[in-house]
Amino acid sequence: MIKIAVINGPNLNLLGVREPSVYGTTTLSMIEDRLQEAARAQGAELDFFQSNHEGAIIDRIQAAIGKEDGILINPGAFTHYSYAIRDAIQAVNLPTVEVHMSNIHAREPFRHTSVIAPAAAGQIVGFGEASYELGLAALIRVIRKSRSE
Amino acid sequence: MIKIAVINGPNLNLLGVREPSVYGTTTLSMIEDRLQEAARAQGAELDFFQSNHEGAIIDRIQAAIGKEDGILINPGAFTHYSYAIRDAIQAVNLPTVEVHMSNIHAREPFRHTSVIAPAAAGQIVGFGEASYELGLAALIRVIRKSRSE
Amino acid sequence: MIKIAVINGPNLNLLGVREPSVYGTTTLSMIEDRLQEAARAQGAELDFFQSNHEGAIIDRIQAAIGKEDGILINPGAFTHYSYAIRDAIQAVNLPTVEVHMSNIHAREPFRHTSVIAPAAAGQIVGFGEASYELGLAALIRVIRKSRSE
Amino acid sequence: MIKIAVINGPNLNLLGVREPSVYGTTTLSMIEDRLQEAARAQGAELDFFQSNHEGAIIDRIQAAIGKEDGILINPGAFTHYSYAIRDAIQAVNLPTVEVHMSNIHAREPFRHTSVIAPAAAGQIVGFGEASYELGLAALIRVIRKSRSE
Amino acid sequence: MIKIAVINGPNLNLLGVREPSVYGTTTLSMIEDRLQEAARAQGAELDFFQSNHEGAIIDRIQAAIGKEDGILINPGAFTHYSYAIRDAIQAVNLPTVEVHMSNIHAREPFRHTSVIAPAAAGQIVGFGEASYELGLAALIRVIRKSRSE
Amino acid sequence: MIKIAVINGPNLNLLGVREPSVYGTTTLSMIEDRLQEAARAQGAELDFFQSNHEGAIIDRIQAAIGKEDGILINPGAFTHYSYAIRDAIQAVNLPTVEVHMSNIHAREPFRHTSVIAPAAAGQIVGFGEASYELGLAALIRVIRKSRSE
Amino acid sequence: MIKIAVINGPNLNLLGVREPSVYGTTTLSMIEDRLQEAARAQGAELDFFQSNHEGAIIDRIQAAIGKEDGILINPGAFTHYSYAIRDAIQAVNLPTVEVHMSNIHAREPFRHTSVIAPAAAGQIVGFGEASYELGLAALIRVIRKSRSE
Amino acid sequence: MIKIAVINGPNLNLLGVREPSVYGTTTLSMIEDRLQEAARAQGAELDFFQSNHEGAIIDRIQAAIGKEDGILINPGAFTHYSYAIRDAIQAVNLPTVEVHMSNIHAREPFRHTSVIAPAAAGQIVGFGEASYELGLAALIRVIRKSRSE
Amino acid sequence: MIKIAVINGPNLNLLGVREPSVYGTTTLSMIEDRLQEAARAQGAELDFFQSNHEGAIIDRIQAAIGKEDGILINPGAFTHYSYAIRDAIQAVNLPTVEVHMSNIHAREPFRHTSVIAPAAAGQIVGFGEASYELGLAALIRVIRKSRSE
Amino acid sequence: MIKIAVINGPNLNLLGVREPSVYGTTTLSMIEDRLQEAARAQGAELDFFQSNHEGAIIDRIQAAIGKEDGILINPGAFTHYSYAIRDAIQAVNLPTVEVHMSNIHAREPFRHTSVIAPAAAGQIVGFGEASYELGLAALIRVIRKSRSE
Amino acid sequence: MIKIAVINGPNLNLLGVREPSVYGTTTLSMIEDRLQEAARAQGAELDFFQSNHEGAIIDRIQAAIGKEDGILINPGAFTHYSYAIRDAIQAVNLPTVEVHMSNIHAREPFRHTSVIAPAAAGQIVGFGEASYELGLAALIRVIRKSRSE
Amino acid sequence: MIKIAVINGPNLNLLGVREPSVYGTTTLSMIEDRLQEAARAQGAELDFFQSNHEGAIIDRIQAAIGKEDGILINPGAFTHYSYAIRDAIQAVNLPTVEVHMSNIHAREPFRHTSVIAPAAAGQIVGFGEASYELGLAALIRVIRKSRSE
Repeated sequence: MIKIAVINGPNLNLLGVREPSVYGTTTLSMIEDRLQEAARAQGAELDFFQSNHEGAIIDRIQAAIGKEDGILINPGAFTHYSYAIRDAIQAVNLPTVEVHMSNIHAREPFRHTSVIAPAAAGQIVGFGEASYELGLAALIRVIRKSRSE
Repeated sequence: MIKIAVINGPNLNLLGVREPSVYGTTTLSMIEDRLQEAARAQGAELDFFQSNHEGAIIDRIQAAIGKEDGILINPGAFTHYSYAIRDAIQAVNLPTVEVHMSNIHAREPFRHTSVIAPAAAGQIVGFGEASYELGLAALIRVIRKSRSE
Repeated sequence: MIKIAVINGPNLNLLGVREPSVYGTTTLSMIEDRLQEAARAQGAELDFFQSNHEGAIIDRIQAAIGKEDGILINPGAFTHYSYAIRDAIQAVNLPTVEVHMSNIHAREPFRHTSVIAPAAAGQIVGFGEASYELGLAALIRVIRKSRSE
Repeated sequence: MIKIAVINGPNLNLLGVREPSVYGTTTLSMIEDRLQEAARAQGAELDFFQSNHEGAIIDRIQAAIGKEDGILINPGAFTHYSYAIRDAIQAVNLPTVEVHMSNIHAREPFRHTSVIAPAAAGQIVGFGEASYELGLAALIRVIRKSRSE
Repeated sequence: MIKIAVINGPNLNLLGVREPSVYGTTTLSMIEDRLQEAARAQGAELDFFQSNHEGAIIDRIQAAIGKEDGILINPGAFTHYSYAIRDAIQAVNLPTVEVHMSNIHAREPFRHTSVIAPAAAGQIVGFGEASYELGLAALIRVIRKSRSE
Repeated sequence: MIKIAVINGPNLNLLGVREPSVYGTTTLSMIEDRLQEAARAQGAELDFFQSNHEGAIIDRIQAAIGKEDGILINPGAFTHYSYAIRDAIQAVNLPTVEVHMSNIHAREPFRHTSVIAPAAAGQIVGFGEASYELGLAALIRVIRKSRSE
Repeated sequence: MIKIAVINGPNLNLLGVREPSVYGTTTLSMIEDRLQEAARAQGAELDFFQSNHEGAIIDRIQAAIGKEDGILINPGAFTHYSYAIRDAIQAVNLPTVEVHMSNIHAREPFRHTSVIAPAAAGQIVGFGEASYELGLAALIRVIRKSRSE
Repeated sequence: MIKIAVINGPNLNLLGVREPSVYGTTTLSMIEDRLQEAARAQGAELDFFQSNHEGAIIDRIQAAIGKEDGILINPGAFTHYSYAIRDAIQAVNLPTVEVHMSNIHAREPFRHTSVIAPAAAGQIVGFGEASYELGLAALIRVIRKSRSE
Repeated sequence: MIKIAVINGPNLNLLGVREPSVYGTTTLSMIEDRLQEAARAQGAELDFFQSNHEGAIIDRIQAAIGKEDGILINPGAFTHYSYAIRDAIQAVNLPTVEVHMSNIHAREPFRHTSVIAPAAAGQIVGFGEASYELGLAALIRVIRKSRSE
Repeated sequence: MIKIAVINGPNLNLLGVREPSVYGTTTLSMIEDRLQEAARAQGAELDFFQSNHEGAIIDRIQAAIGKEDGILINPGAFTHYSYAIRDAIQAVNLPTVEVHMSNIHAREPFRHTSVIAPAAAGQIVGFGEASYELGLAALIRVIRKSRSE
Repeated sequence: MIKIAVINGPNLNLLGVREPSVYGTTTLSMIEDRLQEAARAQGAELDFFQSNHEGAIIDRIQAAIGKEDGILINPGAFTHYSYAIRDAIQAVNLPTVEVHMSNIHAREPFRHTSVIAPAAAGQIVGFGEASYELGLAALIRVIRKSRSE
Repeated sequence: MIKIAVINGPNLNLLGVREPSVYGTTTLSMIEDRLQEAARAQGAELDFFQSNHEGAIIDRIQAAIGKEDGILINPGAFTHYSYAIRDAIQAVNLPTVEVHMSNIHAREPFRHTSVIAPAAAGQIVGFGEASYELGLAALIRVIRKSRSE
């Protein structure tokens, strides 16, 4: 059984509540439910975490040591300046996939740069809720591949 | 009755305690008391919040949904890098006024840029304690105007 | 009695005539009338001046020496490059408040920087016509405060 | 009958008098005479204006409201920094064509950028006196097209 | 039946032949065979194209008009400067997914920027051969979603 | 008889087919037919060429040596990075006019710079189909003037 | 007796646990024990604090007012963007020494800049665990010197 | 007899009236009187002009054609952005010396660059009133030298 | 026998035909003949290729795999932006020497940077035709040295 | 016995003689005497060198080969541009500690960057004379540690 | 009697020998002789020094302490990068005038910036040999003025 | 007989002694001996000079006037900032070839720019010891060519 921490950053708890033109009408818990289902179908178990606190996200990433096999993260606006989250990912040294629902490259210039991406295995942007599902599938592959090496 | 969240960012709890040459000798609670009084005179009720935690400020901004009509915020040093607070303001979609006691354009270069201002209705800088009072008056106008539309 | 020069820069004479989506339908003289009224209620008298000429604005600022107690200025597009107006404000050494009707931080990048703000006491942006009234109130406070020192 | 304001910026009154290696030996009034002739042949009437004063150019642009159908402008060196002229063009909302006699892209770097071009319908550079004639023809087309819509 | 053009840019024909430390030992035709299989399982048919010629890639993108429902593209080094490919994608107006095998954000600085991403629906980077399969799944979703709208 | 090569760059073959909001509904061959007509009226003969291949455009520019008297070029997206096309124009040393249908200065920042303009005689931007006709007229003037010297 | 707050920023709780090639195998509590010992030998008493939360670090810095004589801080990744921590240090106005175990100038470019250093008395980088001991010695000197003034 | 136009830019009419810590207590007319005296001793006659209007300064520079032999100019704040004044100097093609009373290189960064200097023969900065006298002596030399060539 | 591909980029086919002041009067085939002769004298055989097409150059570089021992390349204007050619050189992993006839560091700023040089063994610039001969000698040395290792 | 070269760069010979507000009143030879004493107490012997000549400093660094075990250097203003000193340190490959008396991060922007630091083991800034003593202690630790490996 | 050190930087010993088109045909010793004469007429005595060695120039500047009353310096190319010379001037704290024979603002971009000017009293550029004489006169004034204070 | 000065900059005296992974094991004197041999075979005589002193290198370049026919220089780290060496080369006006043993374009960013190259005839980088021999051959060609003109 693969265990994965699914971490959502600031304001993603408002998904489906606010700004539907950018993020759609699906709430975060709806996404999490469907994602759990998809994970189980692939032999994985997810643990969900959302916080508006950078520090809480770092704590959660560190808590994955010895407990989970990988991290699926949508860092929200922290994407663009949280070198501390980047360091946490680098330090725990677990396969990590960064996802974004909107196409950050087609929005304001400050959203084009991710300070976290260099510490991740890969990045998926622009597919709405599906970004999570694709990210999960990608992460499971990366974990399976590293196990078989 | 108009309800407004008044949010102060990092180190503003030290107002009147430290650096009087920049911020004067009035404490934050003195400012809040006078501001409450001014608000009531204009038919508004204020709820005060101060935190050194970016995440707590985002939580508070989100908590204004369905509870308050507008936000008066002095983001302190978060002004210059917290895209997460900017996103929170944009997401709750409540009229927001950004205030600063000192003239940030006459201080160090890093203080000249606000990443939060584009998400606010307007910005008031440089009038010491009066920045709050002017900001309150401005916010009440914006709220009244949006109600009458 | 407090005497204040109210100075408007280029194209502000077109207020209410052109670009209503940005600046509303109120004309400059309507704003000036209401502002005069508000000033008198606060024990102040305003003298209005508008010009599309940078030099004329500098002349007017200089003319305030020994005649007025403060300056309320909306420098229009000169905001972004007129170091000569900045020098004039610095030279006459009268309390000055800079106002903008639109939120300049939410418009084109070149409008995000004010070369004049460092020479002003403070800046108010984004409240439409109310920016002038808030600016007036702020300026009167600054003048009163400097008198009492 | 189409009516057009033809506006020339700083130092263009020296055309044919100074720097012939860059601008040729034809004087501005010779250009204006030929341009008037060309305009009449196309059913248009031109009104000429030249000034070294940015403010006077803004005044003239504003004066075109309700009087002329379009503006043909060579802003001279104001091209590179006069956001106030750009605002004036945007505010009067008349079809405007920007022309330059020399190829500004083949001269000093500061001449490569026009802060005015984004507010114009189009721009013609590099054809000496002919830049005006081409600009006139282009402007008449733009005006005719907007009338037929 | 969904029809998709799968386009690979310069040097990707060398996959599995050169630089295995970066791109693995799988050849492009092996990837294409597996991808076709995966596509058919999802009710899609793929047409493969690889070229080292920017112009040939633009021709192929244009040829998709009226023939295919979407484009899966790995633009190789063209990612970083081919505004012409970006324009082609924008012009044909078909759902497009950009994929990269390596994590471009963890390589040389010039590889961190994609001039093509703003014209794509989304982007997937860093999962080796799996980037294609994830990109295919993402693209099929985008196409199905746009059909159901 | 003046002979002129009319060269169109990438994606301009889609004119009238795609993105009508930016480029209108006229097809490239319609533009070419009208342009030929206009040319003949001025004693010139045009040879048309369009390619999505930078190399093919360079080949065509070189082929103009000893065969044509000037070049009318809309380099499309190559405008912004093809130093090779710039070198070709400089090398064949024939009068060249660069045209753009849209006002590139009012679009995305990367479109504001032309690396080709410094090698051209002049540039015309923003007049839709008319940009070609104005460019043709300008080019014929330049050619006639150089012949008479 | 000198009292000093020793503050460690994000991910430093993983010292000795993760990334030994960069930070060695000594844990943070081992460092703290030895540091306490060294402090006592110099007549000082240390109070240790570590957090992944920027806000908690600011709270701790503020708590030093009236309680401690100086601050020894390794801000971790906050070094590079936390203007709020810088403001806190400036506000409490206690002698502060910034330390880093690795040589930040020999790592990624974003690590070369400290936004906190201008508010500190001095900075020590590159000596592993010894950075703390040297920083402690430096801080005690600064405190002693300010007392004797 | 050498004839020279002495031109002073914006706010220099306030010399000796305002900001004595930067510019001293001598008024502009005192400087002009002494300068006239110095000029006459060297066989030169000065004509003085001061304006806060960029356009008026350009008019005055142009008026020197055929009337004066050289220009001594302190462009004030126009130094840093008036490409129009630079063009005027270049166009009239008279020997020109640029002077500044304060050391512009030791003040705010925006004052370090003169867009006018490349069009002048030379520049003298930092010697208070003496900058004018040195500039006059320099200009007379340049004029005498060009006459003797 | 050493086999070497000699590749010339855009517009180099015009050598000796155009711009003799920059490149001299020798044609490319004259250079190639003399270079072949020089190569044979050193025990090497050259295969020449010139194209204005970036893609064709990449194809030719790839064709060197298993056929040639090294590459001598003058990428022309592609030097400054073709990351695709750089990738091709890196991928085929053959010793490559980059040459330029003119001193690119003494020409326009955009010519000072080679995006290809980091993938080459070395670079020779500024010696006209001799750049090729020196480059050939350098390449033969590099090949001989790598063989003897 | 550990042998160490202590090298001081330009103008440090003026310590205690000039600019006491920045560097204090202690002369360089007083610092050196105390430092020698401190070194001997730790089983080390120092050799002092000061020069205003970049070349002499490089010569001295090179002379340490085979003679000393480490280098303690205050490069003065060479800190900010002497890549040649950086290369010398890298070439001799001896443990090196860079020290500065003042807090270079709190002075002019050009002083914030050290081109030498990446070649050093570590850096100590801001503690006046104590920077040397701390640097010495740090260096001795680095040398001892490398010996024990 | 005023005593002044006249210091010339690298390559100025070649004056009159090389590059006459930029610097004229007068040799440095001719300039020095005339300058000495001019100095004596003003009650000053000059000591001349020229070196291509940055260190030697710093030594000479330091040697002026207690011996000379001011420094006249043409730093040559050191103007643009020698922060060590700037520090020397600041440290000796003697009135210093920087001179340049050519107009550095009309030459290559790297020559437009002087890192030394902020430490000087003033700067004179562009008057050939006369720059020295004007600089001498300026320096004597500055010295006299500081004596009389 | 051709006479050439061969000049090596800072730290090149350590060749073969230090950093063999970058520069190989051959010492500078071995390179010089072989180079002398190669020169004599081509009818040239070399004079060798190495210094860590920028000033000494400038002195040596100047000493070549009237004594040597050309200069072969490896400026070491001075390549990246010594505008004084560039000026010396420009002033003596002798054919100069710049060489580097390593491929500076594949090393740290600061090594990618040569401030000296614009003053040289050409530049050769990346061929280890052979860079000198190729540079010598290139220089002899340049000298022979200039003699035959």
